[in-house]
Amino acid sequence: MKIDQLFNPRSIAVIGASQNLDSINGQPIAHLKAKGYAGQLYPVNPRYDEVAGYRCYPDIDSLPEAPDVAVIAVAAKRVPEAVRALGEKGSPFAVILSSGFAEAGEEGRAAQREVSETARRYGMQILGPNCQGYMNIADGIHVGFGAPYAMSFPKGGVSLTSQSGAFGNSILMLASEEGLGFRRYLSTGNESVTTTLDLFEALIDDSETKVIAGYVEGFQDAHRLVDIGTRALRAGKPIVIWKVGTSEAGAKAAASHTANLGGAMALYRAAFKQVGIVEANDVGDLADCAKALLPGRLPKGNRLAVVTISGGAGIAMADRAADVGLALPELTPQTVMALKEALPDFAAVANPLDVTAALLSDAQLLKVTLQRLADDPNVNMIALALAAASGALAAELAREVVRISEQYQIPILVAWNADERANAEAYQILDDARIPRYGSPVRCARGAGALWEYARAKQRLDLDEDKQPLRINQPEAQVLLTGRQHDLTEFESKRLLAQYGIPVTRERLATTREEAQALAAEIGLPVAMKIQSSQIPHKTEAGGVRIGIPDTETVGEVFDEIMHNATRYAPEALLDGVLVQEMRKRPAITLCE
Amino acid sequence: MKIDQLFNPRSIAVIGASQNLDSINGQPIAHLKAKGYAGQLYPVNPRYDEVAGYRCYPDIDSLPEAPDVAVIAVAAKRVPEAVRALGEKGSPFAVILSSGFAEAGEEGRAAQREVSETARRYGMQILGPNCQGYMNIADGIHVGFGAPYAMSFPKGGVSLTSQSGAFGNSILMLASEEGLGFRRYLSTGNESVTTTLDLFEALIDDSETKVIAGYVEGFQDAHRLVDIGTRALRAGKPIVIWKVGTSEAGAKAAASHTANLGGAMALYRAAFKQVGIVEANDVGDLADCAKALLPGRLPKGNRLAVVTISGGAGIAMADRAADVGLALPELTPQTVMALKEALPDFAAVANPLDVTAALLSDAQLLKVTLQRLADDPNVNMIALALAAASGALAAELAREVVRISEQYQIPILVAWNADERANAEAYQILDDARIPRYGSPVRCARGAGALWEYARAKQRLDLDEDKQPLRINQPEAQVLLTGRQHDLTEFESKRLLAQYGIPVTRERLATTREEAQALAAEIGLPVAMKIQSSQIPHKTEAGGVRIGIPDTETVGEVFDEIMHNATRYAPEALLDGVLVQEMRKRPAITLCE
Repeated sequence: MKIDQLFNPRSIAVIGASQNLDSINGQPIAHLKAKGYAGQLYPVNPRYDEVAGYRCYPDIDSLPEAPDVAVIAVAAKRVPEAVRALGEKGSPFAVILSSGFAEAGEEGRAAQREVSETARRYGMQILGPNCQGYMNIADGIHVGFGAPYAMSFPKGGVSLTSQSGAFGNSILMLASEEGLGFRRYLSTGNESVTTTLDLFEALIDDSETKVIAGYVEGFQDAHRLVDIGTRALRAGKPIVIWKVGTSEAGAKAAASHTANLGGAMALYRAAFKQVGIVEANDVGDLADCAKALLPGRLPKGNRLAVVTISGGAGIAMADRAADVGLALPELTPQTVMALKEALPDFAAVANPLDVTAALLSDAQLLKVTLQRLADDPNVNMIALALAAASGALAAELAREVVRISEQYQIPILVAWNADERANAEAYQILDDARIPRYGSPVRCARGAGALWEYARAKQRLDLDEDKQPLRINQPEAQVLLTGRQHDLTEFESKRLLAQYGIPVTRERLATTREEAQALAAEIGLPVAMKIQSSQIPHKTEAGGVRIGIPDTETVGEVFDEIMHNATRYAPEALLDGVLVQEMRKRPAITLCE
Repeated sequence: MKIDQLFNPRSIAVIGASQNLDSINGQPIAHLKAKGYAGQLYPVNPRYDEVAGYRCYPDIDSLPEAPDVAVIAVAAKRVPEAVRALGEKGSPFAVILSSGFAEAGEEGRAAQREVSETARRYGMQILGPNCQGYMNIADGIHVGFGAPYAMSFPKGGVSLTSQSGAFGNSILMLASEEGLGFRRYLSTGNESVTTTLDLFEALIDDSETKVIAGYVEGFQDAHRLVDIGTRALRAGKPIVIWKVGTSEAGAKAAASHTANLGGAMALYRAAFKQVGIVEANDVGDLADCAKALLPGRLPKGNRLAVVTISGGAGIAMADRAADVGLALPELTPQTVMALKEALPDFAAVANPLDVTAALLSDAQLLKVTLQRLADDPNVNMIALALAAASGALAAELAREVVRISEQYQIPILVAWNADERANAEAYQILDDARIPRYGSPVRCARGAGALWEYARAKQRLDLDEDKQPLRINQPEAQVLLTGRQHDLTEFESKRLLAQYGIPVTRERLATTREEAQALAAEIGLPVAMKIQSSQIPHKTEAGGVRIGIPDTETVGEVFDEIMHNATRYAPEALLDGVLVQEMRKRPAITLCE
């Protein structure tokens, strides 16, 4: 995909352009004009001679050239014809803002199929339908509708895709407030042709994109996830994904929103883990992870040294670090000795290391501390929490952090929550040197966790580079995933997980009453029993789930009952059988130590 | 405790006041003066005649009256004598800013004991030592040192305590930015006399405190937690606690920071759950929970209706709602029918309910939607996500929300992330009506979860009010907890958990080699083995933990080895024996459905 042409188009046509510049089909021209778009702008609408001062063309055929990008904002039923005309003319990219396609019933699905087929015939890439547009944030070219298209965002190395237009806008706005800088933004809507993974693939090759972020409801082409993830990992482009639809209610909603498959979250997670895709669970979390990954400096291991001027922050960071898989190593005796000599008596020399507020009157203490920790072979990363420190010494503290960061290869992350204005100089020094900076110590620890999640996958890849990498499209996975129209069943999902060495519950599929009884005895009672059919994703609703079955006699009765319920619930469904499953006996809580 | 006298003192003395108004012992007077404190201010220091324009007294004895509050900012070794003199004079409250006590070795511990004994003798309440002060935010009386004492904070119904001064300041600043309003703030330091729970107890009786929040490293007087929590629950004062030290590294750091007991997190959680204390895990999370709880309107059940103008937000909210124990019920056929009639054809009438952006041009749609949902017997709470909606209609949308909220008893929470300035009018309308408002849909769902967590405990209490409520100081718990000087061992903790029906690992305590072997055979191999002694909280460090022991012969050898290691590590320690424990075999991941 020649994605540069999409982001820096010489010409943009707006099919169905309106003279009402507040309307959905008026906004694209209004926003481009307001931002001083330097290329050719072609409104297309037979009702007007001009729109916003630009000559308006009656139809696509009469345009003086094939536009690099065509924005389509006409009624759904007229969209397929517009795509055909653009293909005929030779346009490589169309952005379909119109809704009323796969998200809106059978008629819409048919229209969307027609769009896909036409676009493929002409080799066109399509954003949408049912999307809000896209932005080249670096150059201020915003093509779409909605309030954010009239705004400016901080520039930076993050390129973002979103399957929800409105929600993508929210992410862009909130993450900007969190201090994240952006390069590209694409709302992908129904993904009739061009998918999130297509765009990821293109963004891997964009040298100025340092981190790829995506809001994802589901991947239509999930079988490509590990391949593209591996490519990104090899290219050193971290991917952060906020995958929603992880709960049953969420997955159900996702299915109706952009017609994406829900479920199979465990499969996604297995793939994410394999290729170092970091999974975020909110806007702020996505920003925290992206911030840590942007500078491209990776830790060699998971051992974090925590430095604070307040014991409380250290404890909170230690807790979160443990949650995200980091270790707080003991410092070496040499480090401890050197720090005890350099720091005030009342400093707690351990990890977390509480330098105390004495640091705020002597920047030299910070220098010595960071040097010793960077030299300590037990330490792979440093997280520094400066609380609300501000004032005269703040800029000097920031400069010390930058100096150590330049001198050593070790990643340093900073938590600092002085007021933005009161501490602007110090913050600018850190930002200029690309030192990740967080308002909350807890979120700083999360950033360090994301860094290690990614670094670990990268290390594994580098080690395995000569061998055949693990692929989700191995024989069995291919059989399971190719050309599927339905979700994987629980049994299928777990078979796949087991292939990748991820432990799963002990269970077997029974197709007869007697088989169920024999299996239950073998697995050990009590057992759970669940209907298995790819056409019955909501097993409970179907009366297809029973847990805590205490003896083999009841197992037999339950088998008959579940099969009966399933047949009544979905008479047409193909039933694989009933899964007989070990019951989890472990506590849901874990004791400290 | 006459806490009103602490927050509205007629007179404040600063013992050890400095003419350097930037220093720790100069700041209290500087901040009080700058904020126009109207009572009497008495600097005490034999070196000066005046400080910042106030007459300075040479010693406590020569003060013209017993000050309502005395701030003590002299060297640690002089603190006990100052407390004695204040007690003699008749001061009810002292705030000790000095450090160098229990957090700083044996000498400090002795000094702290002397402070406690003296204060108890005179019936004085003490904040600290090793604290930063406290604030009456409602009336602008800030008594302490650090940048936040010079600032102003939004006023509101939250009273906050913090065991870490610096970190407490950070919470105050960050949570204010999150839109939370405060009434009281207290940094409690080492809690030599007055504990977090003492303050909670006093705040329950403060009619203007609507929500009590606390940053806690550990409770010295944990046995009072359930009693005080029950009192708060009965009084309708929700408590939100951010308890740190939940990880091993965090607990270790907590022990050295303010000399609090770590560990026993599972016990704390059992107590929290029983009395509806909401556990937060970061500043933002604490703010999210407090926001939801402030208006005092509680749901009757856990069934949440989600309304959005964008499918994405609905999915994300559904996911988070599921995480925090909420259900998204089906709407009744009557509701569905009425909404299908009222809403545009392309709206997705389900739960989550996607009203689509059509809402933004017709506030009537919001009115109908909220009315129908409020009338639906399946719905206990409504979460409304308005994305980045702003402009002309925004204020009208906000007014509709307020009208429905006035008309019905159902809690409504709003996620809305339009720019603060662009949408100031609408936000003000919601804030004035005390409708909880969030920037992120995910965090809005978390708020709803906190509301239900609290409401459920309150329902249970109301039901049980006539019966004897469950108490953590039941016979066995009392035996375990009364007058303890040490942490509970793992074995003891689990016995207590089991009493409350919380499932724990299968395990038994062995006191001889042979007993260990017999138990291992009974429990099933492989087993884990761990030294049990209340004087050895860090078992691994002591060489007292071995896991994955495959056969009974090795079990015998390991028993001897662990006992030997423990004796060498802590020759004085009383050893309970070795815990023989089932190994967890279950997967750490959970499949979706």
